[in-house]
Amino acid sequence: MGGERALTRRLQDWFPAPKDARIAIGDDAAVCKNRGRDSVLCVDPVVEGEHFVRGEDLALVGRKVVNRNLSDIAAMGAVADYLLVSLVLPRDLHARDLDRLLRGLRAAAKAGGAFVVGGDVSSTSGPLVVTVTAIGHCEGRVLLRSGARVGDSIHVTGALGGSIAGKHLRFVPRLKEGAWLARSATPCTACMDISDGLLLDLWTMLQASGGLGAEIDARAVPIALAAHRLAKTDGKDALMRALSDGEDHELLFTVKKGRTLPMGGPLTARARKPIGRVVNEPGLWLIQDGRRQKVAPSGHEHDVAAV
Amino acid sequence: MGGERALTRRLQDWFPAPKDARIAIGDDAAVCKNRGRDSVLCVDPVVEGEHFVRGEDLALVGRKVVNRNLSDIAAMGAVADYLLVSLVLPRDLHARDLDRLLRGLRAAAKAGGAFVVGGDVSSTSGPLVVTVTAIGHCEGRVLLRSGARVGDSIHVTGALGGSIAGKHLRFVPRLKEGAWLARSATPCTACMDISDGLLLDLWTMLQASGGLGAEIDARAVPIALAAHRLAKTDGKDALMRALSDGEDHELLFTVKKGRTLPMGGPLTARARKPIGRVVNEPGLWLIQDGRRQKVAPSGHEHDVAAV
Repeated sequence: MGGERALTRRLQDWFPAPKDARIAIGDDAAVCKNRGRDSVLCVDPVVEGEHFVRGEDLALVGRKVVNRNLSDIAAMGAVADYLLVSLVLPRDLHARDLDRLLRGLRAAAKAGGAFVVGGDVSSTSGPLVVTVTAIGHCEGRVLLRSGARVGDSIHVTGALGGSIAGKHLRFVPRLKEGAWLARSATPCTACMDISDGLLLDLWTMLQASGGLGAEIDARAVPIALAAHRLAKTDGKDALMRALSDGEDHELLFTVKKGRTLPMGGPLTARARKPIGRVVNEPGLWLIQDGRRQKVAPSGHEHDVAAV
Repeated sequence: MGGERALTRRLQDWFPAPKDARIAIGDDAAVCKNRGRDSVLCVDPVVEGEHFVRGEDLALVGRKVVNRNLSDIAAMGAVADYLLVSLVLPRDLHARDLDRLLRGLRAAAKAGGAFVVGGDVSSTSGPLVVTVTAIGHCEGRVLLRSGARVGDSIHVTGALGGSIAGKHLRFVPRLKEGAWLARSATPCTACMDISDGLLLDLWTMLQASGGLGAEIDARAVPIALAAHRLAKTDGKDALMRALSDGEDHELLFTVKKGRTLPMGGPLTARARKPIGRVVNEPGLWLIQDGRRQKVAPSGHEHDVAAV
């Protein structure tokens, strides 16, 4: 058994990028030349039993799979244009559930400014699998994971933790924020979406940026209400949830050392306030109650067999 | 229970095409404006238990899913540029089988001149699902299903029937043939790939072209050796297999009335010879032993629940 990240590294070896690709496997989306212009391409499935449970409202499932892709588009600072939908439908799926699924897909596409232009339908005796591909383009720069540098401040677009209580189905992809961060005047140096947990995704960003480290100020990490609520029932610390729970789909981004973000735009005051900074020493360091302690890049990583 | 075609019609209602799309849901691929240029987009999955059986060499499965997409690209007369791969992997998948799968994906991509630039990996307790998205562009015209007219001759690029004996995994997408037919000098009026059987796909083309009919000359239909071989064991008529077996992935195309295809190019002599012609009377008519009899648009259609 191995992790998704190990498999991603193997895929990079298996599928070397074409010469005209700015980025291929290993970021939130691929950025490829499309006859002289950059196209942004990504694909993400949701699988019954993995990303949602049987009995879930399929309108929310349709919303989730579209928004997972739009969140990847947002993380590149791009604009979504087109979506393709592949439906692998269990034979016992009810017509009203398929309607709910299509309704959720359509509403999320519309909210994200993208059109469903194609797809395919298959049957299965197994679980429902809905796979969406998003095709977009950049109007500003492309925001990569690999641009973080020592001294850059670290930011997130919203509160984290406890997404399992509902946000994992209902999150809103940060398209406006991503596109704004990609404008040439902003000092944003790196960006990705938080799908596997803050610490694990931050670690991924730091690795992509040349093996750097980060200090996180525990008091500055925005903790979602859901994380506090869950803490009361299961006893898991709300801060630890904010640091390591997956599927918040907020943007994690860095701002160039000594620079501040321009005023205006869609970012909240909280997103403008750093939660930490990039350091030269590899590793993740949590500053809490005046102490600086090393923490593991824990988070939610899909176990993938065969790696 | 209903058919894939019924669901496709419903999807067209659910997801109206954007204003700048030349074609969206309902052809082999979507053709959309990508900042002034046409992009050709399609997605196709293969599902264990539906498109292949457990125990099959996954190199052939990887090849099949890439080539199903490249065949859709070919049917539009387009060139494939990029591929995205979404892997939903059973937890008990062996490392060597994943290697075989990746090997098949890579070899087929390379043979088709396309690059795998992105993807995603998930786990499942259900069957293996591999979904590939292809992004291409047109250098000539776009070949649609809807262009057939009364009097046009009907052609296929190769022998048909019995693909279940092996061709369904090993077919070669007709990229060269599609691109050649899309050149401005050829009198090709409509094109699609034969995935569900000649009669059913021809019926789909005639419906898309305004509700026309076709006469097929039984003696002119090229019958694959595999169809003859299977006829000896299961007694099903080889001609009927050629007319209705799915997954041959040859191109079905029409040539403008009174025109002939230019010399040269990749088409075989057999593909240049018509197998029939488009008629005004709706329906499919088989000319056999001097008799003209109506035949049903039979073929392989995925039953899809919930329609």
